[in-house]
Amino acid sequence: MRGYLEARHAPALAYLEAHIEQGPVLEAQGLAIGTVTGIAAQLRYQAVVAGQANHAGTTTMGLRRDALAGAAEMLLAIERIARDDASDLVATVGRIEASPGAANVIPGEGRFTIDIRSGDPVRRDRAAQAILIALEAIASARGLTLAVTPIHDLPASPCDPALMNMMDAAITGAGQPPFRLVSGAGHDAMVMAALCPTAMLFIRCKDGVSHNPAEHVDPADAEIALQVMLGFIHRLGESLAAV
Amino acid sequence: MRGYLEARHAPALAYLEAHIEQGPVLEAQGLAIGTVTGIAAQLRYQAVVAGQANHAGTTTMGLRRDALAGAAEMLLAIERIARDDASDLVATVGRIEASPGAANVIPGEGRFTIDIRSGDPVRRDRAAQAILIALEAIASARGLTLAVTPIHDLPASPCDPALMNMMDAAITGAGQPPFRLVSGAGHDAMVMAALCPTAMLFIRCKDGVSHNPAEHVDPADAEIALQVMLGFIHRLGESLAAV
Repeated sequence: MRGYLEARHAPALAYLEAHIEQGPVLEAQGLAIGTVTGIAAQLRYQAVVAGQANHAGTTTMGLRRDALAGAAEMLLAIERIARDDASDLVATVGRIEASPGAANVIPGEGRFTIDIRSGDPVRRDRAAQAILIALEAIASARGLTLAVTPIHDLPASPCDPALMNMMDAAITGAGQPPFRLVSGAGHDAMVMAALCPTAMLFIRCKDGVSHNPAEHVDPADAEIALQVMLGFIHRLGESLAAV
Repeated sequence: MRGYLEARHAPALAYLEAHIEQGPVLEAQGLAIGTVTGIAAQLRYQAVVAGQANHAGTTTMGLRRDALAGAAEMLLAIERIARDDASDLVATVGRIEASPGAANVIPGEGRFTIDIRSGDPVRRDRAAQAILIALEAIASARGLTLAVTPIHDLPASPCDPALMNMMDAAITGAGQPPFRLVSGAGHDAMVMAALCPTAMLFIRCKDGVSHNPAEHVDPADAEIALQVMLGFIHRLGESLAAV
């Protein structure tokens, strides 16, 4: 509890955040809530593939340097590398554009984003490396040029171990089985971690669907979460009073 | 020449068009100009792939129904089917969009265009059929839905056989070797064919590059084309006077 003694002299003792899981893990475990161990390390890139814009009707298949066809092959490589990793690693292409972007013109340029995350920063960086190597090989085989720019590099943000134990105790106190999981999504706790120890509680997410109008939390689960948060705050108060 | 006798009573005797080839054939043959046999049959589709939009950080790879990853696999199938055909067949995806289109959201929808052309309408339709079957199989394997709407179906527009002979003669008359080729691109002749017999002359295109600011015709080739067009018009006039 030494950390909290020190924290008493700081403006914030601790930061507590409850959030919908935005993923499928708690639902798959049949659990209403879980203790978050931390926020996954994120890497984001912007990729630009350049080929040769040309007439779609007159340029024979063998003579094409189609930037979008190259980008499509790269997307599948990114998906395959993430799928082949059996851990929590995920990789996503969420945005893509082809230019000039006309039905009758072979795209001369393709642009897309790459988002890579894992609770384990080493695993994340290893996957990023494998992806960049695969993309370069595809560009080279197709006579395309590739520029990949990092636009976002967020280190992992672990939750405070003592607060995690306190959260587990509060969960048990609410009659629920304790369970720990990592957060693939970024949260406010990530920013607050610079100021004070952080704790997070995840709430079960219907069908694991998020960033979508169908995102849903069961009110009964929210009530359990509220009970756990109150239990957590009581325990934190007691631990401070006990010093 | 019976066609031209009839045509004399119509407002237009014939339609003559010269155009940059917009492709690599004449350059590869070392020729300045060539007689066009007709305009290739075109088919154009709009494809919409629907999956499940979700959070890029929290949705494990195995649980995704990524519409853009599916679209990428479809693009490569389209390219492969066109490449495997050894004829003049071409197929192109020139435009693509993913929605919602954010770096941190798995795309719930992918939209793209498909353009398929061949001088041989039967070959074009066979390729279109193979593409639609391949796309359906990819959608089904990935738990995606696919809607493909035809947006453009242009039959082949052959040039007039007698006028092609006249063009060949005019090319020979200008001291050039006669050569015939099909047009993968659509041209005004395609529209004029409804009114009168059409003839087209193609001019060599630097590096086969078109629909691109680098599109270029050598002025010397343009002069040869002008000479051939004058020769063609003289021959047409003589054929009419001879009746």
